[in-house]
Amino acid sequence: MKNMFAVKGNIIFTKEFGVYEVLENGFIVVEDKYVKGVYSKLGKEYDNIKIIDYGNSIIIPGFVDIHLHAPQFANLGLGLDKELMPWLESYTFPEEAKYSNITYAKKVYSRLIKELWKFGTTRACVFATIHKNSSKLLMDMFHESGLGAFVGKVNMDRNSPDYLVETTEASLFDTEEILKEYSSKYSLVKPIITPRFVPTCSTKLLKGLGVLAEKYKVPVQSHLSENIGEISFVKELHPEAKNYASIYNDAGLFGNTQTIMAHCVLVDDNEIDLMVKNKVFVAHCANSNSNLTSGIAPVRKFINKGIPVGLASDVSGGHSLSMMDVIVSSAQVSNLKYIESDRNDKPLNTAELFYLATKGGGKFFGKVGSFEEGYEFDALVIDDSDLPIFKALSIEERLQKFIYTGDDRNIKERYVAGDNIREPKFI
Amino acid sequence: MKNMFAVKGNIIFTKEFGVYEVLENGFIVVEDKYVKGVYSKLGKEYDNIKIIDYGNSIIIPGFVDIHLHAPQFANLGLGLDKELMPWLESYTFPEEAKYSNITYAKKVYSRLIKELWKFGTTRACVFATIHKNSSKLLMDMFHESGLGAFVGKVNMDRNSPDYLVETTEASLFDTEEILKEYSSKYSLVKPIITPRFVPTCSTKLLKGLGVLAEKYKVPVQSHLSENIGEISFVKELHPEAKNYASIYNDAGLFGNTQTIMAHCVLVDDNEIDLMVKNKVFVAHCANSNSNLTSGIAPVRKFINKGIPVGLASDVSGGHSLSMMDVIVSSAQVSNLKYIESDRNDKPLNTAELFYLATKGGGKFFGKVGSFEEGYEFDALVIDDSDLPIFKALSIEERLQKFIYTGDDRNIKERYVAGDNIREPKFI
Repeated sequence: MKNMFAVKGNIIFTKEFGVYEVLENGFIVVEDKYVKGVYSKLGKEYDNIKIIDYGNSIIIPGFVDIHLHAPQFANLGLGLDKELMPWLESYTFPEEAKYSNITYAKKVYSRLIKELWKFGTTRACVFATIHKNSSKLLMDMFHESGLGAFVGKVNMDRNSPDYLVETTEASLFDTEEILKEYSSKYSLVKPIITPRFVPTCSTKLLKGLGVLAEKYKVPVQSHLSENIGEISFVKELHPEAKNYASIYNDAGLFGNTQTIMAHCVLVDDNEIDLMVKNKVFVAHCANSNSNLTSGIAPVRKFINKGIPVGLASDVSGGHSLSMMDVIVSSAQVSNLKYIESDRNDKPLNTAELFYLATKGGGKFFGKVGSFEEGYEFDALVIDDSDLPIFKALSIEERLQKFIYTGDDRNIKERYVAGDNIREPKFI
Repeated sequence: MKNMFAVKGNIIFTKEFGVYEVLENGFIVVEDKYVKGVYSKLGKEYDNIKIIDYGNSIIIPGFVDIHLHAPQFANLGLGLDKELMPWLESYTFPEEAKYSNITYAKKVYSRLIKELWKFGTTRACVFATIHKNSSKLLMDMFHESGLGAFVGKVNMDRNSPDYLVETTEASLFDTEEILKEYSSKYSLVKPIITPRFVPTCSTKLLKGLGVLAEKYKVPVQSHLSENIGEISFVKELHPEAKNYASIYNDAGLFGNTQTIMAHCVLVDDNEIDLMVKNKVFVAHCANSNSNLTSGIAPVRKFINKGIPVGLASDVSGGHSLSMMDVIVSSAQVSNLKYIESDRNDKPLNTAELFYLATKGGGKFFGKVGSFEEGYEFDALVIDDSDLPIFKALSIEERLQKFIYTGDDRNIKERYVAGDNIREPKFI
């Protein structure tokens, strides 16, 4: 018999967008790294398996953060008084330059991964920097931690400061080196093609990356239509382009392989149609878009059109790694978007946002973010016994209470692909 | 010599709106409950006083939360899927009805006050319920805790459910009983006239409360122009009124004595003029206004006009008691308001919001919220040594990092009016 066990507790997850599946005092049977099934009683065939009883705790899928910048973790909570383009120049690029130093990278990345673990983020899509070695280091460290991640060495060959720029050739060469070395190295940590965004990537670089994505069958992540300053700069650089998205698309970087575009705050209808057609994921970064005065992404519209959406911290445009915090912020801006859209784009409720923070983003990783059969078993055990609760609450209400008023102290256990993950201790 | 001591640490506060005063390794001398002065070195006259050295910690004024509903604490993080009027009917009124039971009230209020303490809120303006006895209990408990508070028994004599309504006479009678009994009972806890809002208060009740406010020289708190549903109901009820604010004003409840109006999201220019003229405080409740889909209050406009503004959690329309969280949320919506106002209403920066969360709201309590001479010594000692910090930060940056990324675990000591306040232990 394969490695099999069950966890017992109050199980809640979302198979469908916005619809909770709830099993009080239920069991999740795990076989190797996969969910075998969810049961209210265990059948005879499971008589001899180990049962880990989490009592009255809540068991939820692990959180999936589909857009964050690892090196910017050092700037968390700082430098939030500028919009995107001056923010990059003043705060972000100078910080990212430091990651040519592998010792510094290790210091920051160690703490970042510990904090991701702390907040129950079990999978993440991560931008590193242009530096090959610290990008590799980050992948090795994620692997060591047991968390799942797509990690991208960033590409930038123009409109970047002298201290943070590559030649087109070196950028492509280093990227390919990583793809060769890391595509099959780890099961939970994979490389991803990561052009920073159109302003810092020449057409030649973008096309070269498109070729690599196709050649190695690897996914892509980048930024799209985040802020008005950025968009007008893109228009200046590419007067010939139909729109911002088409520049990625022309280079084979817009859904040719699985693709995430962060933000999409100000996409136009043509871009949305292209996203629908190419099944491009949106990383919705509510905190970041408010912090950097970008605006509110039309998430309800994306969902109605069938565009896949996940939630993201976007550290350090976002100031918090906590996906609970990201859910709350996403709910708040969806309410404000409802007003802004003359009450057309309905607010996103907790069940809908919980879906986006688990299965929605998890789809990018395959079968991740749910407790359906065949899904990788990523889970958090939530002990809410110390939260101020004064009446009997349903499991749905307890989950909402945890999201809105709890914090990392309520997360007691974290599983990734069937393994119970302990706090990373990097040496 | 009077009771005198000094605290030593990295002192930061805002004397003027948006301007930090910083003293690294400085001293605050406290005499009785007041700040005597802030010094980089102690003069000879202080040779014999006790010095409490907080090392590298940051010392800031205590947070002031100028609008929250104590009974709604039980609903924290729940029932956020409706706008104001249906939210009141579905979730809030049924909860508030429970406070006829003093045992239940004590249970919830104990935890609420502990949580306020935990998050470093040293002064608060609080709505209780219509119930006289649990309102008195709340005042007694605040006194016992050592925190400062204005506490209002709520008045509501119309458009309220049968289980949560008073007669006009009983409402006024009970209010006056509390004013007589509590106006001079405690130094840090005081009663405040608290008509819930126009929809639930008859003109007769409002006018009666105006008379009491004048007779006992007590301040007033209520709600104004929070949500479109509420405003249209007020218009229906008072077709004769010039606007919503004028109804309070005609009753002597709009600045005749010191007054706070919560929200003011949708006030018109005439209402703003009246607020300016009458020096009415705005309680800005960013989390609540986003959670209940009310909108974004024009705070920059208020400030430019000279209207006094403080920040508020508005539990449980707001989901968090943490004033750090409230500052972040206020910053975010101010950025979105900047976009909404065609880039006219400038975003509020951290120093400005820190002022509002300390001295801005503190003004309602007198000399509170600053370390200037003569101010009551309310302070928090912030130990940020466990936050992820990778470079030398200024004290201003450390404060911002604490606000955006820290939490209650970083608050090591809390002073109110010169006393070091320990965690409340209610029996």
